[in-house]
Amino acid sequence: MAVSILDCCFCQKPVEESLLEQYGFPVAGTETRCYTNHALSYDQAKRVPKWVIEHISKQKTLGNADRRHCKFRPDPSIPLMFSAVNEDYIGSGWSRGHMAPAGDNKFSVQAMAETFYLSNIVPQNYKNNAGFWNSSAQTFGTADLERSAQRPQDTLRMEMYCRELTERFEDVWIVSGPLTLPQTGDDGKKRVTYQVIGKGDVAVPSHLYKVILARRSRISSEPLVLGAFVVPNDPIGFSHQLPEFQVHIEDLEKMSGLVFFPQVDKTKDVKNICDVDTCKLMGFDEFTLYITARKVHSARTLHRLEKVMSELREMGIEPDEYLVKLYKKKEEELVQQKQMEAREGRAG
Amino acid sequence: MAVSILDCCFCQKPVEESLLEQYGFPVAGTETRCYTNHALSYDQAKRVPKWVIEHISKQKTLGNADRRHCKFRPDPSIPLMFSAVNEDYIGSGWSRGHMAPAGDNKFSVQAMAETFYLSNIVPQNYKNNAGFWNSSAQTFGTADLERSAQRPQDTLRMEMYCRELTERFEDVWIVSGPLTLPQTGDDGKKRVTYQVIGKGDVAVPSHLYKVILARRSRISSEPLVLGAFVVPNDPIGFSHQLPEFQVHIEDLEKMSGLVFFPQVDKTKDVKNICDVDTCKLMGFDEFTLYITARKVHSARTLHRLEKVMSELREMGIEPDEYLVKLYKKKEEELVQQKQMEAREGRAG
Repeated sequence: MAVSILDCCFCQKPVEESLLEQYGFPVAGTETRCYTNHALSYDQAKRVPKWVIEHISKQKTLGNADRRHCKFRPDPSIPLMFSAVNEDYIGSGWSRGHMAPAGDNKFSVQAMAETFYLSNIVPQNYKNNAGFWNSSAQTFGTADLERSAQRPQDTLRMEMYCRELTERFEDVWIVSGPLTLPQTGDDGKKRVTYQVIGKGDVAVPSHLYKVILARRSRISSEPLVLGAFVVPNDPIGFSHQLPEFQVHIEDLEKMSGLVFFPQVDKTKDVKNICDVDTCKLMGFDEFTLYITARKVHSARTLHRLEKVMSELREMGIEPDEYLVKLYKKKEEELVQQKQMEAREGRAG
Repeated sequence: MAVSILDCCFCQKPVEESLLEQYGFPVAGTETRCYTNHALSYDQAKRVPKWVIEHISKQKTLGNADRRHCKFRPDPSIPLMFSAVNEDYIGSGWSRGHMAPAGDNKFSVQAMAETFYLSNIVPQNYKNNAGFWNSSAQTFGTADLERSAQRPQDTLRMEMYCRELTERFEDVWIVSGPLTLPQTGDDGKKRVTYQVIGKGDVAVPSHLYKVILARRSRISSEPLVLGAFVVPNDPIGFSHQLPEFQVHIEDLEKMSGLVFFPQVDKTKDVKNICDVDTCKLMGFDEFTLYITARKVHSARTLHRLEKVMSELREMGIEPDEYLVKLYKKKEEELVQQKQMEAREGRAG
């Protein structure tokens, strides 16, 4: 991970310049910070990123990097006094939500580990009291969610759509970040309200945005496709689809104060992603199979493995071919492990 | 006015750098913008400055530049979509509060005019329902305030203290800006709440800060003096003095996400301004004389001139020598003007 230490801003005005700047201009620390597979600008006042950009491709989402070996930690490049710490989140009722997802970085242990820096994290709703998690509370409690999925399902489904895009587009760029948007009160006045958590007063966003830019291939003459999405930092449930959250890129730019992909002429060089691609989020059954596969993968005992599979059957969902294969492999692994432990037990 | 157009931030990491940055990183427009006698960083999301720095000296506060010839206007260097406009403020119930004050720039018409760019302005309370303006509502209405003083008296008194510092210090640097600070609710949760005004959703700060750094002289070996102050964006009244609003510079840095005067070692190179200097804001009588002098200066008719002076007497305040002199000069001027108009009337 390398951080640009260049101070970016010097006045070009000669008049009195040196005197005005004699003891330095205020430093906001918003310079772009670069990591193995993402870059970001940090908000020292809110203790969250302003934006995080990543590039993904089919190849990057494949590999053996495993999130179970990663830990959330303060970004060593952020000055201590401005850094979020794990204690700000723990017990706050808010989860640590990745902006650049860990799962986009399976190609590199280092890249994945860097997505766990708190500079890439914002407080995200994980209680998910509505929709999916609620309707199946008996089988997927919050504890399960924390242990296995670790992400609100809405965000996860959106990330999965982005990864799926790499099947159809060679290069996908994604900018993600938090928003604190105003609401009109009963008195007709517009106000921004957001919670802050922990000693560090980490800002809880009201919404999250994603801007997706995709290129079919390096040699294709097809226009780039672009989409901007704003989702509330609440569970949205399975009845909603991505186009419902699409906004005009200019509107998102006004809300966020950012200009995205400045080197693209968004008025003519691009097509709407939802016209060109599906913008379809994974359905309930498919998503449940995905989550179950993750649970099977991380099961450490035969008992746990059987429980995961029986939960799936109780929900009336048939395991697909991939899951059956994964299950059999895991079962074999755990049986062997058990036998080995038994032998060691006898020997010891 | 010159603006640095250098994009400040290039990743130094070679890995995939060019691909990640292929269509550009998001642009926040926070680069330092320089004007004749101030510099600032603009917040494109909130449509207000993050910070404004100025340098003042005795010489700069003297001169003939007159605020009556200045008009508030959008800063031409701010992209239209991110710029506040006068319409955002008008009728909002909030005044346009200067960060770098116009009155610090009497030496230069250009410097003063540039302080009227909305990039140097935040929504400030001017109803001043408590304290001074309220207790004398009969004589100093809101309309009076808008016309003559144009600033909340608290801010004005603080600015006057800063100018007064130039009598005792050769060089004074001041950083001013808005804050949106959290409050703890009845439910024990901390929340940030602020109003936004106009179509542009200009953020109304809950508080304003000022950091003052002063140097006795260029050749003095005396340590620099430093003070950080946070005042609510409400009237504070005459019963309060500056030290009540003083905060540790580190606390302000945490609140604002900014490091001030980074080239000063604040742990050892500086003394507390309120230990070395008075930190005394102007009292009621003195302030009333000051405001009356401004009204006398801007009176356009003999009737108005007499009204201003009789208001002062009704408040039981004796005009001081300076005011008496100013009054006589103005009276003479207006009498001559009247005679001239009468002659022209007869001639025409």
